[in-house]
Formats: sequence, C-alpha cells, structure tokens
Amino acid sequence: MAKNMALKIALIGVGKIAIDQHIPALANSAQWDLSAAVSRNEKVDGIDNFTDFKTMLDARSDISVVSLCMPPVPRFEYAKMALDAGRHVMLEKPPGATLSEVYALHDMAKEKGLTLYATWHSREAAQVANAKKYLADKKLKSLKIIWKEDVRRWHPGQEWVFEPGGMGVFDPGINALSIMTEILPTPIHLKNAVLQFPENRQTPIAAYLEFTHPDGADISAEFEWRHEDLQTWAFEIGTNDGSLILNEGGAKLQINGVEQSQPASDALAGEYPRLYANMAQLIANGESDVDTSPMRHVADAFTLGSRKVVPAFNF
Amino acid sequence: MAKNMALKIALIGVGKIAIDQHIPALANSAQWDLSAAVSRNEKVDGIDNFTDFKTMLDARSDISVVSLCMPPVPRFEYAKMALDAGRHVMLEKPPGATLSEVYALHDMAKEKGLTLYATWHSREAAQVANAKKYLADKKLKSLKIIWKEDVRRWHPGQEWVFEPGGMGVFDPGINALSIMTEILPTPIHLKNAVLQFPENRQTPIAAYLEFTHPDGADISAEFEWRHEDLQTWAFEIGTNDGSLILNEGGAKLQINGVEQSQPASDALAGEYPRLYANMAQLIANGESDVDTSPMRHVADAFTLGSRKVVPAFNF
Repeated sequence: MAKNMALKIALIGVGKIAIDQHIPALANSAQWDLSAAVSRNEKVDGIDNFTDFKTMLDARSDISVVSLCMPPVPRFEYAKMALDAGRHVMLEKPPGATLSEVYALHDMAKEKGLTLYATWHSREAAQVANAKKYLADKKLKSLKIIWKEDVRRWHPGQEWVFEPGGMGVFDPGINALSIMTEILPTPIHLKNAVLQFPENRQTPIAAYLEFTHPDGADISAEFEWRHEDLQTWAFEIGTNDGSLILNEGGAKLQINGVEQSQPASDALAGEYPRLYANMAQLIANGESDVDTSPMRHVADAFTLGSRKVVPAFNF
Repeated sequence: MAKNMALKIALIGVGKIAIDQHIPALANSAQWDLSAAVSRNEKVDGIDNFTDFKTMLDARSDISVVSLCMPPVPRFEYAKMALDAGRHVMLEKPPGATLSEVYALHDMAKEKGLTLYATWHSREAAQVANAKKYLADKKLKSLKIIWKEDVRRWHPGQEWVFEPGGMGVFDPGINALSIMTEILPTPIHLKNAVLQFPENRQTPIAAYLEFTHPDGADISAEFEWRHEDLQTWAFEIGTNDGSLILNEGGAKLQINGVEQSQPASDALAGEYPRLYANMAQLIANGESDVDTSPMRHVADAFTLGSRKVVPAFNF
C-alpha cells in the first residue's frame, strides 16, 4: 500500500494487543505509516525499533504521533513525555490508572494544541452505531449487560491485571461500559455494586452492578472473569417499542429477533482500523477526544461497591 | 436580624452537621431566611417543618433554594427532585455517592438554568486562601497531609460512614483533598495508595496516599480514623522559598515559623457563613460551582489502592 502521504506513527508497548490489533490495522491503512516501535523485549519487523522511549523521541523528530499500548499504570509518564515533545497521543483503554491523570493530560494537550485521543475500541464494533441510532428515540425499559469471559484465555499470565490499578474484571468490563455510555441517550449512575476479590488478589475477578436511570429503567451489568464455556459479551435491551440483542461485543445486532446486516457504509472492517481513522481525523481537525465516562463508572464501582472475598485465583 | 430581603431556603436533613453548622450560619446571615426544614425525626424551632421532601416542595413554592445535608447515598434523588421543581441546590460534601451522578446533576442544572453548588467547607477555612496565594508563585518541594481524628468523637454511632458509599476515612480525608486541590497551582494525580479496611466494614478506616507532581515534589497524605489523642488536620509544605504549616483544618497558618494573623478583609467568620455567602453570589450571577476534583482523588484511591484487612471496628 502506498504510504507516501501517510502520517508517521510510533507504537509504544509491543504486547498482545499491539500484535493482534494495532500493527495489522496500521499496516492495512493508507493513512498511517508505522515508522517505529518501542519495547523492552519485542521487535517489529521492517521498522525502526527502540528499547527506550526518550531515545526514540529524540531520534525520530519526524514521527508526529505516538500510540500507547502498555498497561495503564505507566501510561501517564509516557503520554506526558510525548506531549512535552510535541507529539499527538493516542491511548489504549483505559486511558490511565487514575481519572485525575487523564484530566491532567487533557489539559496539557489543550495547552499545547496537540491531539489527545482516549480510545474505546468497543465503541467501534460494527453494530454499536446502529444500536445507538435505534435507542435515540425509544423509551428504555431495561438494559442488561452480560460480559463473561475466561481471563486465562484472554490475558494469559498477565499478572498486572490483578495488581493495583490493573482493574481486574473491569479491564473487559470497561468495554461494556464504553458501549453503554455510547448507546444510551441519557446519563445514568451506579446505585449498587458487589465486587468479588480473590483472597490473593488486589482487583476483582467478578462484579455485579446496578444503575439508576432517570426514567426508572432496570439497568444491570454482570462481569465474570472465570467463565470457561461460551464467551459472552452481550447487551439485552428492552424498550417501549421493541427489543435489542447487541452481541459479540457489539459486532452483532438483533432487533426484535431479526439479525441486522452490516451497514453498507461500513467500509472499514473492525474496531482498530476505525480508531486509527478517527485519530487521523482528530489530528486533521486539531481536536481531542477524551471521554472519561466509562472510567468514571469503574471508579464509582470501586468507591461505592461492596467487597466480597472469594477463593484465590492463579493463572 | 432583618430578613425582609433575604433568600428563602429549606434545609433537608437535620443531623449533626445541620445543627452544628448550617442552622447557625443561616440564622446569623442577613442574606438568608431559613424558612423550612425536612427531616424524618428532627424539628427546627420557629420554622415550617416537614417529614417529606416532595410535600415541602409542593407546599412552599416560595422557597427557591434547598440545601441538602443528608448522607451522600440518598442525595442524588433529592437534588434531582429539587432541580425538577425549579429550585437552586446546595450540596454538602461529598456532592454524591458517585462521580457520574454529580456530572448528571450538573448537566441538569445547566439545562434548567439553575444554580448547583457542590460545597467543600474546608476550602473556606480562614487561612486556605492565604496558603493558596503563597504557593501560587513558589516551586513546590514537598507536601504532607496528616489528617488524624477519632471517628467515635466526630461521627458517634453513624454507621453509614462504614457502609458502601459512606467513604469511611475519606469522609474527613476528602476535606484535606479539597484544600490540596484548592491551594496547589498544578494538578496532581495518585501514584500509590494503601487502604485499610476493618474486617467487619465495607469502607476504609485508614489510608495512605502518594501523588505524582509534575515537577517531582513529594506529596503524600495520611488519613487515620482511630486516633484518640490530639486531633490533627495539618499540611506540612516545603517550597524553594520557605515552608508552610497549614493547621487546624486550614484555620491556622505558619509561614517560616511565623503565625499569620487573620486577613483584615475576613469579615465572615467561619466556613459555613462563607459557603452560604458564595451560594447567594452564585445565584445572583446565574452560575454553578461543581468542582469534582477532591472526589476524583477519592475514587482514584479506591480504584488504584491496595486493600489491607485490619481488625474489626465497632463504635
């Protein structure tokens, strides 16, 4: 693919999500030229590889954009260094380990006239926009999130998810919350939560949330990370006018039992290509996109939730 | 005091803080006329008393302002009813049980052109403004918060502080964080936290926090709710140019060991009279004041903090 007119970008953190999603999305885009990678252990074939971020920033002043794919705890320092060095920044979800640091980064980006994009990849799943459109003029009766997966399959050996700041089951659960906050036309807030902490871990492995809706709709979410059978990432939604099932993490949609086809306008297949297209557009417009609402719901659950200790978990 | 030109206000929740602070502050202000109270169990002498909020709103359409003093969990429903009924709303700290509900209330108030004031009473302590002024042009080296009190003395038998959403030691700790966010010229964010949960309780009884500062200053906070001796609410602050001790919850200030006198302009004595003066000004200006930054630091501590189980606590 011709990359002459493409934006040069560096990928920081070459782990599972970078290899599975970011690198293919960038390779298949005419808008982007993956020019460098920074990782202590991994290399990306055919591009400039660095082990140190500061060295990359100094050596490659021609690269105007960085995409940060490391775990949330170290992310702030890298984002700050990048903004200080005049680079646009794209953040994997969640955009940080704390809400306060995300607000601070947003202020920094504004001050420097740079683009900061706090991405929520699940919002770009194929049918999320259609679900949102359907709900825009309906009266919501109920919304039930069922997010059940096997942490051993999706985060094999990734101890950081159970360390403070790793968020535990909210690492996948925040994807559901990012869809929820995207498709609902009115803001909601947490009413009750129960978080299950394995006795040997600092973050929850399961959570049950109930929300308050302005019109009294029943809204709940069940997040489970010990689910070995059929992996489920689904919304069951009831309205005054019909019911929706948004399934497979937002990729499939049934309205009143009828499977919806992909919209004809859906030229970009997949979440990460759309994220990178959004990033190119934000830079072109001189804008940022930093919506912290999914992360606020997580912080609310940690603040308001009851804690229940459950048996130890080991990978 | 002549109350002819005063704004009529209703107080909702006649508990310890209302009796100790709100009622005297309103009684001594020429700007305010405490016209009604709502409480299931308590009555305020000489004014209209209600046991039901909706009944008060319907009966007293002449009262344009309500001040909510109940615990954080039920506060949202009352605030929403008040805004829906076209009343300006003043909220005790913390402004809600979740961040999301505070954002939702702020949006509602904006939409309806009403004033919402999320108060932080400790910011109105006598020397907070002077500390802020001193720090505005200094380079911060260190800031240490020591907030040690006896929960049995200050919240006798108030079980809600240990129930989910009651925030535990962050109930007083958020006062320190409200001062911290007021006096520091740059935003900071949590780096590490350890929260001590009594084995029979859902909220922490002690917490230790460390923050990241953009210039690398050492910032920490120690919150302790089992402290029976000298009650301590202090900031020890070091700068490139001198040191501060902000003590007694912000009421006293030493700069380089010299006790600062009260500013001559400090006509209003005490925190709550200033809060109510601020509220009158906000209404006059058609503005709201909803700064969630102290609460964000609390939510960040719950999200990022390590949990340590400590012996049971009973009143």
